[in-house]
This record gives sequence, C-alpha cells and structure tokens, in this order.
Amino acid sequence: MAIEAARLSPSLAAAAFLARRPPPALFPFSLRRRLPLLRVLAGSSGGDGRVVALSSSELRKRRGLSSSSGAADPASGGDEKLRSLRRLFSRPDVGIDAYIVPSQDAHQSEFIAECFMRRAYLTGFTGSAGTAVVTKDKAALWTDGRYFLQAEKELTHEWTLMRSGNHGVPTTSEWLNDVLPSGCRVGIDPFLFSFDAAEELKDSISNKNHELVLVRGMNLVDEIWGDARPKPPKEPTRVHDIKYAGIDVPSKLSFIRSHLAENECDAVVISMLDEVAWLLNMRGSDVPHSPVFYSYLIVEVSTATLFVDSNKVSEDVLEHLEKAGVKLKPYEAIVSEVERLAEKCAKLWLDSSSVNAAIVTAFKSSCDKQMKKKGKAGKKVEKEASSDEPTSVENGTVNAVYNVSPVTLAKSVKNEAEIEGMKNSHLRDAAALAEFWCWLEEEVCKSVPLTEVQVAEKLLEFRKKQDGFIETSFDTISGYGANGAIIHYRPTPEDCSSVGSDNLFLLDSGAQYIDGTTDITRTVHFGEPSPRQKECFTRVLQGHIALDQAVFPERTPGFVLDVLARTSLWKIGLDYRHGTGHGVGAALNVHEGPQSISYRYGNLTALQKGMIVSNEPGYYEDNSFGIRIENLLLIKELNLANSFGGISYLGFERLTFVPIQSKLIDVSLLSPSEINWVNDYHEEVWDKVSPLLSGATRDWLWKNTRPLLDVTH
Amino acid sequence: MAIEAARLSPSLAAAAFLARRPPPALFPFSLRRRLPLLRVLAGSSGGDGRVVALSSSELRKRRGLSSSSGAADPASGGDEKLRSLRRLFSRPDVGIDAYIVPSQDAHQSEFIAECFMRRAYLTGFTGSAGTAVVTKDKAALWTDGRYFLQAEKELTHEWTLMRSGNHGVPTTSEWLNDVLPSGCRVGIDPFLFSFDAAEELKDSISNKNHELVLVRGMNLVDEIWGDARPKPPKEPTRVHDIKYAGIDVPSKLSFIRSHLAENECDAVVISMLDEVAWLLNMRGSDVPHSPVFYSYLIVEVSTATLFVDSNKVSEDVLEHLEKAGVKLKPYEAIVSEVERLAEKCAKLWLDSSSVNAAIVTAFKSSCDKQMKKKGKAGKKVEKEASSDEPTSVENGTVNAVYNVSPVTLAKSVKNEAEIEGMKNSHLRDAAALAEFWCWLEEEVCKSVPLTEVQVAEKLLEFRKKQDGFIETSFDTISGYGANGAIIHYRPTPEDCSSVGSDNLFLLDSGAQYIDGTTDITRTVHFGEPSPRQKECFTRVLQGHIALDQAVFPERTPGFVLDVLARTSLWKIGLDYRHGTGHGVGAALNVHEGPQSISYRYGNLTALQKGMIVSNEPGYYEDNSFGIRIENLLLIKELNLANSFGGISYLGFERLTFVPIQSKLIDVSLLSPSEINWVNDYHEEVWDKVSPLLSGATRDWLWKNTRPLLDVTH
Repeated sequence: MAIEAARLSPSLAAAAFLARRPPPALFPFSLRRRLPLLRVLAGSSGGDGRVVALSSSELRKRRGLSSSSGAADPASGGDEKLRSLRRLFSRPDVGIDAYIVPSQDAHQSEFIAECFMRRAYLTGFTGSAGTAVVTKDKAALWTDGRYFLQAEKELTHEWTLMRSGNHGVPTTSEWLNDVLPSGCRVGIDPFLFSFDAAEELKDSISNKNHELVLVRGMNLVDEIWGDARPKPPKEPTRVHDIKYAGIDVPSKLSFIRSHLAENECDAVVISMLDEVAWLLNMRGSDVPHSPVFYSYLIVEVSTATLFVDSNKVSEDVLEHLEKAGVKLKPYEAIVSEVERLAEKCAKLWLDSSSVNAAIVTAFKSSCDKQMKKKGKAGKKVEKEASSDEPTSVENGTVNAVYNVSPVTLAKSVKNEAEIEGMKNSHLRDAAALAEFWCWLEEEVCKSVPLTEVQVAEKLLEFRKKQDGFIETSFDTISGYGANGAIIHYRPTPEDCSSVGSDNLFLLDSGAQYIDGTTDITRTVHFGEPSPRQKECFTRVLQGHIALDQAVFPERTPGFVLDVLARTSLWKIGLDYRHGTGHGVGAALNVHEGPQSISYRYGNLTALQKGMIVSNEPGYYEDNSFGIRIENLLLIKELNLANSFGGISYLGFERLTFVPIQSKLIDVSLLSPSEINWVNDYHEEVWDKVSPLLSGATRDWLWKNTRPLLDVTH
Repeated sequence: MAIEAARLSPSLAAAAFLARRPPPALFPFSLRRRLPLLRVLAGSSGGDGRVVALSSSELRKRRGLSSSSGAADPASGGDEKLRSLRRLFSRPDVGIDAYIVPSQDAHQSEFIAECFMRRAYLTGFTGSAGTAVVTKDKAALWTDGRYFLQAEKELTHEWTLMRSGNHGVPTTSEWLNDVLPSGCRVGIDPFLFSFDAAEELKDSISNKNHELVLVRGMNLVDEIWGDARPKPPKEPTRVHDIKYAGIDVPSKLSFIRSHLAENECDAVVISMLDEVAWLLNMRGSDVPHSPVFYSYLIVEVSTATLFVDSNKVSEDVLEHLEKAGVKLKPYEAIVSEVERLAEKCAKLWLDSSSVNAAIVTAFKSSCDKQMKKKGKAGKKVEKEASSDEPTSVENGTVNAVYNVSPVTLAKSVKNEAEIEGMKNSHLRDAAALAEFWCWLEEEVCKSVPLTEVQVAEKLLEFRKKQDGFIETSFDTISGYGANGAIIHYRPTPEDCSSVGSDNLFLLDSGAQYIDGTTDITRTVHFGEPSPRQKECFTRVLQGHIALDQAVFPERTPGFVLDVLARTSLWKIGLDYRHGTGHGVGAALNVHEGPQSISYRYGNLTALQKGMIVSNEPGYYEDNSFGIRIENLLLIKELNLANSFGGISYLGFERLTFVPIQSKLIDVSLLSPSEINWVNDYHEEVWDKVSPLLSGATRDWLWKNTRPLLDVTH
C-alpha cells in the first residue's frame, strides 16, 4: 500500500489529502472531505454585482431543501430513475451494460455546483462522497465510514450500499468484474473522470475483458433529470485586484509560456478552476466556499483563450482580459478547440491527473486522425524524466507532454501581496473569532442552550461584519462532546446537539475574504475538563508546538515533519487518523496542493518558502470527545547561525492569532520551552489582535492571553 | 532521486545503507563503507580449532603488506596487468571490447576474502569501494569522495580516476556508452553481479546497442593474477551453540519450507553468507569482521544442501548438519545443482537482488532448454504482488518466484536467546570499554602521545580479555580532531594522528563475541572543549535522546523516525550526511537489513519487535572535528495506557552501556526530561557494568556516571 502511495504523483497525493477523489484502498482516512451535502450555491449575487453570503441553513430554507428531503427523495421515484437510466443503456447511440456515476464535476473540484450533483440526484444519497454503479439488474453505491448511516437512510431497497474501507468490500471495478459476464461494455461520462482515473478504470476492468465506453455527447443522468435539473451557475465573475494578486496576468502568462518553451510545447490546457482563477487574477462564485467559476483556459505561445459562459464576464472583467491578450470562447468549445490544436499539430501540455478524459481522448484521436492523414508516424509522446514531477505516460502517436500543470506549484508559492493579504485577513478573522468566543462563553452560561448550528451561524454573523468577507471557506464543523470525535462532523438544524459546559467543544471553520482565506480550529471547555481531556489536549498541543517550531532543510517533503506532530500522542499510545497539514490558497481554495504534511509518504513535494500549510494535529475519542488545534503557517527562510551543506533552512511563521484555551493545558506535562511557546504566542495574539477590539471582547482577549503559570518551577 | 529511492526493494535499500554496492546517483552519502583496504583475513585459526583474532596492523605485518605497498604496487607492473587483461579480450572464448571489475564477491558481502579483491589487484587502488572498467584503450576507476586522495596516489597514469558524486562525472554505463562505438560487447564475471544489477547494467548499455556478455568459466583478473593469487580461505566452520542461536536448524528449515509451500515453490537458493550461517546455526571465519563462511544453501521441500568446501566442515559440524538433514556438496557445484533443479522443472525462489547473475541465468537457460525439449510453453513467471515485498520481475518462461529471501526478515527479528546473547555480550563489551577509556584518560596526560592506531590496538587488547571475544566487527574508526570529521576515517600506522587533549576524539568500534555483536561510538575531549564543540555535541545528544525515547505504532518504517534525530541540529542549521540507524546481526554481520533508520525514504520495511538498530546521529565540521554518539537499541513492544487503533506501540531498549562524556554537554540547552534521560542512563550504566569492574576502572565508571547538575533549576 505504502509503495503504491509513494508512486503517486504529487498532485494526485495532494488530491487524496483533499479527497477530491479518495481511492479508499490507498488512503483509508482523509482529513477532510467537507464536500457539501445536496445543496444550493453558497454564494449568490446581490444583483448589484456585490457578492453576498448566505449561511447553510438560510440557503437550505430558500430552496426548501433539507438533507433528508433532497431532490432525490427515496420515497418519490428512486426506482423510476433507475428504470429510465437502464432504458438508455440499450439505445443504439449508447449500447452499454453498466454506467458509473461519480460525484465529480468536470474539473476535479472539491465543491461543485448543484447541477453537477448527478450521483446525489440518481441515488437519493446526499452525502458528499460516493460513487454509484448501475448495471442492467443491479445498483450499488460506494461511500465511506462517514456516511454509512446516512446512506442507509437515504437509499431505496434497490440500491446496495458498499461500505468502502470495510473488510472484504470490493472496489467498483472488482465488483463490476464480479457481477458482469465477461466482455461487457462499461460506460462513463468522460468529462467526470480525469484521464488518469479513466485509464486506471480501463485497465482494471480489462481483466474481465470489459470495455470502457466513453459515452460522449450526453450525460445519462442529465437525460433522465431533464428539465428538473438545476441550471448551471451564472454568477458574475470579478477581477481579483492586483493589490491582492501581486502579479499581473501578462507576467503570469509569460511565466507559463517560458515553461511551454522549456518543454517545447505549443499550448497548455488548464482545467482546475482555482488554477484558472489564479492565472487570470479573476474570481467567481459558481460553487460554494471557493471563489471560482466554471471555465477552462488554454495558453498558447502568443494567445490565451478562456472558455467560459460570456454572460459571467462583465465589461470591466472583459477589459481586464483584453489587456492581457486573453480571448473568450464558450465553455463548451473546449473540446473542439483541443481538436483544432491537434489538427494544427500543436504539441500540448496536459496534466492528465486533472484534465478530464473527454479532453485528453479528443486530443488523442484528433492527433491519430491527423497522423493517418499525413501518412506518417509522427512524433512520439515525450516522457518527462524529472524525478520531482513524475509523469503519467501514454503510448501512441500523441503529440503531448503529460506533466503536472505548470500553475500548480506557482500558485502554491505565495508572492508578497498574497502573503500580506493572508496576514491581514487573518487578523480580521481573529477579531471576529475573539468576538465570537467572548460571546459564546457568556452565552453558554445562560439557561437556553444554543445548538451547534446556531453557534456556527452566529460565528458567520461575526465574520460578516469584517471588511472584505465573502463567505465561509468550507462547511463549519461545530461539534460538541461526542460529535467532536466525528472528524468530518457537520451538524444539521434537524439533528444536532446543544453546546453545553459538560464536555469539549470543537470548532473548525474558515472564511473567504477579498484578500485571503482562513481555516482555524479551536477546542474549548466551558466547564471543568476531566484530567483525561486535559492530558489529551496537552498532548495534541505539544504536537502542534513541535511542528510549529520545526526547522528543516530545503527540499524536505512535508511527510518528513508529520511525525513531529504525533510523537507526544504516540508516547501514551494515542494517534489521529488524518494528515497534519494541507496547503491553503490565497483568497482561493481552502485546500490546495501540491504540498501536504501527512503520515502517508506518497507526496514527495518539498515544502517551499512562500507556501502556506495548516498545522492541525488532533485526537478523537469515539463517542466521547474530539480535540483539534489548527493554525495556518507560512513557510519562510530562516537566517540561522549555520547553514550546513550551503543550503537554506526553512521554518514557519504563524498566520492565525486566536487564543488556545489555557484551562485545557496540563502545564505539568509541558517543558519550559513549550510553556514559553504558549506564552509567546498569546503575547503575540494580544499585540496583534487587541488593536482591532474594544470593550468586553478586548477584556476577553486580555484574560485569555495571560501567561501560563509555570508549575514546574 | 527520492522517487527512485522509494521504488527500491527493502533489501536493496538496506544494501545501499550498508553500501555493499552504493549506486552513487541515488545515495550520495552512506553511513559506513568500512570495507577493508587490501588486507588478509582478520580471523585465523590457532590450529587447535580455537578462533583467534589479529589486529589490523598485526595482520599487515604478517603479510608484509601495507596500504601503500600492496600486491598491486603501481611502480611494479600496473601497466602489464592492463596489457595482459586486454590480450584476453580477443581470445575466441572471450571476445569482448570492455570488462568491468567490481569490488564484490559472489555473495554481495560487505567484507570479502583477499582472493576476491580483484579490483584492488588490477588497479593498485586498495580502497574498499570502487569499480574498474577497462576498454581496449582506456582504463577508468570509479570511487567516492572518501578515496579520491588515496586513489590519486595509488593509480598509475594509465588509469583515469572517476570521482563518483562529483558534478558531471558519468556512471560506468554512461561512460561506456560514451567511449565505445555503438554495438560493442561489454564483459562481466556473472558471479560478481546480482541478477538485478546485471539486468540494470544490460538495460543501460543497450541504449548504445552494446551487449552485456557474461564471461563464464573464468574471471579474467584471476587469469592474469595466476599463481600469485591468494588461495580461497580454508578456515574451519563451527557450530553456533543452540544456547546462543535459540532455535534449532530443523525448526528454521521448517519455517523456510512453510514459506516455500505458501509460495508454491520447490526450492530456494540462499546466497547471502550471513543468511546461510543464521539458518544452519553455523559460523566461520572466511572474511574479516563477519563470522561467516563461503557457501550457498539450497533448501528443498524435503532436503537441504550446503555448498561448501568440505575441508571446512569438521566432524562435529558434519554431525550437526546431518541431524538437520543437510547434505554437503562442493561450493562450485551450485550452478550445476540449479541446472539440475531446472531439469526437474522445480519452481525456484530466487532473491534476485542478492543471488548472482551466474546462478539466475544458469537456471533461466536450463529452464528454456527444458521447455524447448518438452515442446511446450511451460509455466510463466509468477509475480508476487505483495506491497511489502516488491519483486524484481523478469519475463520469459522461467519457473521462478523473484522475491526477497525468506531468511532476511526472520534473521532480523531476534529470538529470546539471541537477545540474551546480545545483552550479555554488550555488558562485557561495556566493561572492556570502561577499562579502555579509564586507561586512555590516564595515558593522554603522559608526555609520549599515542597514535590513533595504537589507541585502537589497545582497545582490541581490552576486548580480547573478555570471554567469548572473537574479533572486531569492523575496522575501528579512531579519529582525533579533524580526522573525526571524516565519517569513514580509518587510520593507518604510516599516516595517522596522535590523540591529544586539544580536540575531540571520536571512536567508533565493535566486536564479534561468541554470543553477540557490538557497535558503539563515543566522542570525548581530554582537555577543555570549546563552547562550539559543546553546543554541537549537545545537539547530537538531543537527537540521540529523541530517537532513543521514540514510541511509535507498529508498521512504522524506520525513515519516519529519522527526523527525530536531526531536529535539534536543524534548529541551528546543522545536519549530518549519513543515516541514523542500521540493523545489526546477533553474533553475525554488524550491518544487516532489511530495516534501517535513514533520511532516505526508500526503505519501507517496518520496524518490528525483536529487531536491533543502531542510534547514531552525528555532526562533522570539516577540517575541525567530528561527533557521533552511537548505542544499539532493541525494538520492544510497550505496554501503554492506551493503544489507539487496537494496535501495538513499539519503543526501544538500550543494549549499550558506556558513559557519555558529561564534560561535553551544555546542560543549559537540555530540557528537564533530557537531563533525566542522561542521569537515568548513567545510573543504568553504573548498575549494570560496575559489577564487572574493580579498582581504578570502577572508580572511573563511578566518576563518569554521576548525575548532571541541572543548571536550569
């Protein structure tokens, strides 16, 4: 297992952390799969072009939806959907024996628009992660441990629930190889699989002589969804101001073009939505939590083309694009444009781990046609032999370089403006959180208890008051007591606990601001924590401090540091089943690659100066309580007394400034230097955040940033 | 680079740590390549069957050799050797354009017998590591940074020195591809390359259409060496007493046979000398430092055959073998026996990373012949798909499983008797070291300074007095001042420093006892260490303590823990360019796989209960001083308050009990728990070792195990 993980490309490994498409056998546990339940758009335009935010429950109210009465209510026609889908199997232009419906959109996005929630529509199961497979007489849904109970409730009896990760549960392809007679045709929508994923699927079902059929021109679920299918999002895009972006679009395009030249390529297809947004200094609100818009981008040596619904592009955005020499084409024109490039014999850079199979295979078959037409063998596929950037290799006569997108690393290394925006937005976020915690501490003492959802909504209110606030950067994890032990817990108004003073309360939340993205977790107790809770909290804190204080030579991959965050827990036989750190975008996706800090050793990407990572060790006691302490860290170069090997040594600078509850710390377990860390951190919190506060909140901050009493002296 | 490393098989990765055959591009630095210089046997029989030991310099005297006047004295005929070798190239039964002469014997041994030191004989270069390549008009020798100066001195002008690891220096095959016209024949002695290494070589020279020619039936260097070539070692073997071995041979053979059955194999070829010795509870003294004897072993379902010179097998050893059902055949009969197995259509288990190309290719071609004779396709090669044990895969019709030897892991996990032997021998070794350090401390104050070699010889004297002492387990690294910064330093009587009181003295040494193997490094200062030296020493000590105290879940590979030993150094921009821990045999090789603790992440072998590893962080300041602190550790299962995930948590138990010089510790840098560690360790040293001592040495031990003054309180 570990060896396979080590062979994954960095971007794939990062994706696994972010769980865009978790391969369960390789990565049984993933820190966060905060994909939304069946849900409408989280951000919507106020009509005046201003971006406004709605809380989850508001949104749900507006659409008249709840998680238990979605568009695919099991009581109202789940069977009919299956019947309709199967009827399509035998249509002459389809001709398949099975159809796979994944949760993805065409861009491997973490958060997707409602119109792309085909798996939820078809199955009735509204959890964020899952894959449906339908044969002529069987229907099965794969999901992981977070969703077993929910899926049991939501699926009709015609569906078999496949509990991924449980012993003996087959993968989708193992199951297909088992239930289908040899030589069947298995259909997919090629837009919904990365090329690599499609190839892997093709390989694994070929064991039973099944053929993978790319059903082009229509998505079968959309066919049966019909007019009821939500319209694709039409939210306007906006220019991301240069004062936050730091580098203008022409410079970024030049950078990409220099990479094209180095790799002797004529063009590159960018399909990850955050990569398009970053490269063009544009933002949108087509999906919840991420300020992106549905689009593709092709950068050629002298031109660049954005494939987007032109209705989303206002005059000023158009002007911004024109200045940078970027033309517009319709979103749907991407495939024909790639075919046109093949006809021109252009050599294409394709990140086959993110670009979907529809685009890559269209390019390949156009190349093949072109070669035949020219009656010659053509150039062979180039294989990049860089050890840092393993390539997915394909045979044939395709004129392409398969390599990780040139935007991925560039985007992860923040420039000075981006860093400044991240710092500023984190201070405002800290002010909102101070107000919130001050309020909640007061509130919990009152007689009417608040629910986890009410608490999360109040937090949103405090954040909304901050300048430049746009929306939450993911669904708030607000977990009291035993709920805190559910790593991906997401309370719903219908089914959530009150927040009291008898147990720990874990709150993991974040926000999108105009200038930055935040992600913070604090765990608190409003009454008397047990010695056990204090011991566990203190061990988690020690891991947090050890990672925060790490110094490491350049070229160190994140996984090397992961052990530092676990050592204190391991000493007493405890651990946590998620990674320790993920990359974070600057006013972009809250989860981004290529770097990560994880016990899985598959991601060999070196941590680099300018990258941002989260530091979030935890401990979860099933049915009892959960603990996580999360700050975001900026990687910086250190100026040390020595530099052995003549190389740089790197360390972290904290971006997050919110008190850590002293009450939960068993000071007798801390070393003097750990005590100093807590005291120094709290002093820094006071210095940086108190100027933004007044009154009771300022008093609260003062009280909560006092030095620990050093009981060891 | 790192990705390639991750794809190495565990045994290959371990080999790289041990530097049996360091691939320079992958592993530029290797902790120890303590291979002997051109040297006679380190152990020899006293005639009465008793094993006696000779020091390096004694041995050198006996043979009239010194490192600068070896058998291949550059002044007396180096050119003639090359001429003779090239004359052989055109012999009809040879017919080659180039010949590669590696440093290996036929068993991938770390220490080899003199008769196999062909590269040293041919080139005149007596360093332990190097590869010679001779074409019709060129001769080049590859060696690494440790040996550049020595090679410059020892090579004649006809040889080109290839400085491995230096920028722009090609590998042997790159060089061959460069200097030979396309389509040449490159010869090797197939006994001296593992099958995997030969295949890799074949692949890399095929780029230039060169053919790899396995020159069978003769080694070309032996041909020109003629009668002057030393005879193969004839040292008698002995039975390794069951009270030290713990498990009798029939039980071990049963274990291997159960693995054969599981893998549906009929036989396995064991070619690593320590694996044969372990499996048959036998020891020998054919090579220096390792108690092994030249042999192969084939275990079949109902028989087992030892291929060994029968003169080495005394009556009692013969009886021991007969009891276990082990037959004898001549050492040279291995190839014909493997061919016989192929004729019988037996399915063979071959560890192609250790079994040489002569054996594997003989089996393959016999299988092919057999298939043709039978006129059918035959069974295909089986590929083992275990992720823990990656296999080297070969196409064709060979009836073989290529998998890591079933002995490798079994040998590394020590049984209770082996653990007891290791503990006992370590206490006696500690007593010898206490006597030594007490003596040296006294001696350094005297007016006549001792050299590094004299000091090492005196240490040998102290060890010789201990019960069950056999020989050193590697060449003692005795490095004063700047010499201590040369990681693989080995002083020679002709060219070494005196040990004084103005600088640090690093001493890395070990011994073979009848019941165990030791390996220990201490660094001391007999005068006033500088603040810089104290800071560096203390940082190394902190790394040593952090690893010693590590607790980790089962299935953790060693590389995960490596960072713990470096964190304290990294904090001030320091590091060391070698791994932190290697496996150690029980009364066997001082370096063994499959486990290791290294910053290279190629070795995915989990650390397991019963394994032994070294803990040896260091710091080396070029031209100034070297620091290393090394203990051996036994991996044990811990009984903790929790066991998250329902799995075992492991930790270390120290085997080495020799004081760490308090004078070198800057106590102000230590945490209270680090201070406790030092004090507890010294208390344990006193408790365990003082009963073995008396007089001045006992006083010395008392003085050197007093608690640190805690200056932080």
